[in-house]
Amino acid sequence: MHFRTEENIMSGRNEQSKSAIFDIDKEKNFPDWYGEICRVAELADIRYGVKGFTPFLPWSLMTMNNMFDILEEVLQRKDHLPMLFPTVIPESNLTKEAHHVAGFVPQVFWIQDTGEDGKLEERLALRPTSETAIYPMYALWVRSWRDLPLKRYQRCSVFRSEVKSTRPFLRGREFLWIESHNVFTTHDEVMAQVQEDLETTKEVVTDNFGIPAMVFRRTQWDKFPGGLNTYAADTRMPDGKVIQLPSTHDLGDNFARAFDIKFLNENNEVMYAWQTCYGPAISRIFGALISVHGDNKGLRLPFKIAPYQIVVIPIYKGKDAEMVKEYSRKIQKDLRKAGFRVYLDDTDNTPGWKYNFWEMKGVPIRVEIGPRDIKENKAVLFRRDSMKRETIGIKDLKKRVSALGKEIDTNLRAEAESKLVGFVVDADAIGAIEDALDKGKIARTSFCTTEMEGQPCADEIKERTGGEVRGTRIDADEQPAGVCPVCGKIATAVVYIARSY
Amino acid sequence: MHFRTEENIMSGRNEQSKSAIFDIDKEKNFPDWYGEICRVAELADIRYGVKGFTPFLPWSLMTMNNMFDILEEVLQRKDHLPMLFPTVIPESNLTKEAHHVAGFVPQVFWIQDTGEDGKLEERLALRPTSETAIYPMYALWVRSWRDLPLKRYQRCSVFRSEVKSTRPFLRGREFLWIESHNVFTTHDEVMAQVQEDLETTKEVVTDNFGIPAMVFRRTQWDKFPGGLNTYAADTRMPDGKVIQLPSTHDLGDNFARAFDIKFLNENNEVMYAWQTCYGPAISRIFGALISVHGDNKGLRLPFKIAPYQIVVIPIYKGKDAEMVKEYSRKIQKDLRKAGFRVYLDDTDNTPGWKYNFWEMKGVPIRVEIGPRDIKENKAVLFRRDSMKRETIGIKDLKKRVSALGKEIDTNLRAEAESKLVGFVVDADAIGAIEDALDKGKIARTSFCTTEMEGQPCADEIKERTGGEVRGTRIDADEQPAGVCPVCGKIATAVVYIARSY
Repeated sequence: MHFRTEENIMSGRNEQSKSAIFDIDKEKNFPDWYGEICRVAELADIRYGVKGFTPFLPWSLMTMNNMFDILEEVLQRKDHLPMLFPTVIPESNLTKEAHHVAGFVPQVFWIQDTGEDGKLEERLALRPTSETAIYPMYALWVRSWRDLPLKRYQRCSVFRSEVKSTRPFLRGREFLWIESHNVFTTHDEVMAQVQEDLETTKEVVTDNFGIPAMVFRRTQWDKFPGGLNTYAADTRMPDGKVIQLPSTHDLGDNFARAFDIKFLNENNEVMYAWQTCYGPAISRIFGALISVHGDNKGLRLPFKIAPYQIVVIPIYKGKDAEMVKEYSRKIQKDLRKAGFRVYLDDTDNTPGWKYNFWEMKGVPIRVEIGPRDIKENKAVLFRRDSMKRETIGIKDLKKRVSALGKEIDTNLRAEAESKLVGFVVDADAIGAIEDALDKGKIARTSFCTTEMEGQPCADEIKERTGGEVRGTRIDADEQPAGVCPVCGKIATAVVYIARSY
Repeated sequence: MHFRTEENIMSGRNEQSKSAIFDIDKEKNFPDWYGEICRVAELADIRYGVKGFTPFLPWSLMTMNNMFDILEEVLQRKDHLPMLFPTVIPESNLTKEAHHVAGFVPQVFWIQDTGEDGKLEERLALRPTSETAIYPMYALWVRSWRDLPLKRYQRCSVFRSEVKSTRPFLRGREFLWIESHNVFTTHDEVMAQVQEDLETTKEVVTDNFGIPAMVFRRTQWDKFPGGLNTYAADTRMPDGKVIQLPSTHDLGDNFARAFDIKFLNENNEVMYAWQTCYGPAISRIFGALISVHGDNKGLRLPFKIAPYQIVVIPIYKGKDAEMVKEYSRKIQKDLRKAGFRVYLDDTDNTPGWKYNFWEMKGVPIRVEIGPRDIKENKAVLFRRDSMKRETIGIKDLKKRVSALGKEIDTNLRAEAESKLVGFVVDADAIGAIEDALDKGKIARTSFCTTEMEGQPCADEIKERTGGEVRGTRIDADEQPAGVCPVCGKIATAVVYIARSY
């Protein structure tokens, strides 16, 4: 849904009173940078008055809608169909899988009262995730091997009563995501689906949004409640902590047994089904995206998903005003016709004010048009990622903008990737791990085991360094050597340790 | 978001056991028709287990997503920007406007408990509509006349604990809509916005979805709680009852006073703002759409919004199989390349079974391909609306499909419009009104007044005929004559009376 508006009101008429110059050192002071950019770029307003619930404003929502479009296109191309389940889940459904209920009930918002003094017979949970809403219906829908695979997803809000402090997009009590829920006849198909989901993550998050990630199999004590294994992508934030991006879960046949999802196989035998679920949280990925790509002047949005890809700024004095504005409108129209999302800022603010404002908003390309440019059939293009200007002939505008858009996205991604690689350091003792984390790095270490028996060692690392064991890389082949830095047993896994969101 | 999938699983593999022939008389037995089409066309599954909450399945959700796309394009073209507010509203916000709280509190779902035994300090309402969520923020955002007009909308679920019996799409406890909330400096601008909203309704609901409607100003006792006036479009359902489609509300400055939304005007005076809100409920419009256009063989979906606009059916025996399938795949590919949403049904079901199945699903155009067609470079096109076939040269396929799509939409709309007109009858006495309603008609009558003093007469009509006073037409100029059929006072308004959803 990347519609364009003929004329709108996002141009900062009500920004006049604010300074248009944003200048906070992101690397040194990330929390301030993050809070301030959410405010001045009008991404979210934290004054809503219910802890952890935040209105999303046009600039963020339009970006997230473009992100959703890309993700949905990929999911549908890979044979998933959309559906939508109710926001509420009966308490009796939620409690059917023991590990799952234990994992999620602490975070549930419960509805029991209705109207003036009515009571529901059974409490309803606001969905914290929808396995327990969807799977009782899957039990009705799945009959025979002919019905499988069943690949469905929904795009929705989910609700978790977080105890940690909240932050817009990164950690909220209501967030936006897609959850995909698939059913198969065998565990082999489950593993193929996990692989497909990881490829989807790479295509969407890295190739399209430019966010690099490392992919882990989580430890047994950190997996999805009720599942067999969790696979998740992490990226690094400017404050050195990592954040989980999409995770995909091998549910085995655990939920099928709890919810009675059975099918008749080709030999007419009744079998339990095998399942996966996958949960890319767009609002959280958006929070990571602005953090990873932003700089000290504000946002830097990828060309593919920016609400406005191009802003046109007319530059004039006195008698030239109407001619320059008219010419600028023509450029806007031509670029829109070519399929770009273009905004023309013809407000009364000064060009300098507009430059700062749209740089802060992260618009990838600016077209500057003055009387001399018009005379010479030229235009000035400014790219937000590198803050560089170039002059081109007006007849090349569409072609150059298209190429520049791709260059900007490639560059944002390359910058982010080169940074991430440098942050992994090897550490073979608690002191070295702590030292790495204090420097904002991610520690790689050999570790006793990611089975449940390893949890006490992970707890000790957490207590002494603040770092969490993120699991073993599945996008890299790494062999353990030596012993666990905590218990001294022979290491069976190479794990990554980081502070996290 | 009308993506296409390369291959999917909606082709009825799990329909094999059901009969593919749908045959219920819609006009004579609408409730059965409606319930059964929701089930067999896989639109909604009423077995979810929480009263009035219904999962929406791919066939309905994909259609509704296409409907949302059209509506959002129109709203954005008319300078509305998207935003998204939290699903929950603090109780203290909800109670700030007296009429509003009285109107909505009986239907509110309340959250007070969280986690295992936590309590919120203040109860939270699941939004029944979002004025009371949004307007406290508008009070912070609106400062001066330069900030106005402020035109925003959100696409979301809303929740109402309906006491009436529920039915998928038409009346549920959770439904999908867009709510648009605008702020202006004068009441004149409010009235211009009401006009714009009515034009949007016509463009979207009638021109694009083919649903004819009559537009009313509602009576004072039936308006939006807290507003000055409500304007709403009604259409007639096959059982003779009318259903409200989008409604738009002149809120005056009532909410501005309750929520303190003030602006500095050009003379530096502090003024209360003027507001409108508009709420097209897509899931309800979808319920009306399938009811208005459907026939005894099932759904008839408009070409513009059908999930699949075209289904390709290969017809072969024995040795021709691979050749016909290959050719069909090529046709699918060509049509997709031309931008159409095309499904190829190459399952093992018989062609006759497939015909019935896709007719029941309402796919507008079917392309039938057999060995002889291939030899002669021809294809057979079948249109669902009129159930007619034509044979065309394969080189004309894309052009003909495009034209046929438009013909189908025009025809569906014309059929629906011609029906609606015939259902309005003049009635000047209670007996005549009752008689009209019993025949599934809509009664037009002169009436004392649509101000509050008219309510007792409307109550009596309701009690004696089951009909509701829907208000006065604003899309037709009608002069009252004679007296009110209830109180006998001189009539001041021409009103329409109908049984309703």
